[in-house]
Amino acid sequence: MRFVARVLVRPKAEVRDPQGEAVLAALRSLGHDVAEVRTGKEIVVTFQAKDEQDARATAERMGDQLLANPVIESYSIEVDRDVVKAR
Amino acid sequence: MRFVARVLVRPKAEVRDPQGEAVLAALRSLGHDVAEVRTGKEIVVTFQAKDEQDARATAERMGDQLLANPVIESYSIEVDRDVVKAR
Repeated sequence: MRFVARVLVRPKAEVRDPQGEAVLAALRSLGHDVAEVRTGKEIVVTFQAKDEQDARATAERMGDQLLANPVIESYSIEVDRDVVKAR
Repeated sequence: MRFVARVLVRPKAEVRDPQGEAVLAALRSLGHDVAEVRTGKEIVVTFQAKDEQDARATAERMGDQLLANPVIESYSIEVDRDVVKAR
């Protein structure tokens, strides 16, 4: 079966986020009253797995092995069955 | 009132995603049976607005002005009241 995992990778709260700081400065220079900006990455992986439990375990292994740096980032995972996309 | 807008910026389906292709190759080299990888950016903006309607309009203006490149990217927005964070 095909599954789609959405992995959201964010810098930990105590880690600096230079990209977010740049966006904050740019939004302020455009006149927006912005207090804070944090940025993260979304990685959408379509892959084969036996069942939903296997898919979740596989997605977590991908996160630990490659997608997130556990020293400075945390991540969350959503797993769904892949439905045929009408593109 | 303070609001938090989560802006998800993704390359359009017909646009190449070199970062996603690199992640796909890396996951395959680790032995995962992956069909496709797409990457996007999450930008979480905390800002002042009069009410929820104003907050949504402001977040859309931020998306159009700065956060997304409409030629190659599409974006979606979720707006919520900012609750005091227990960090």
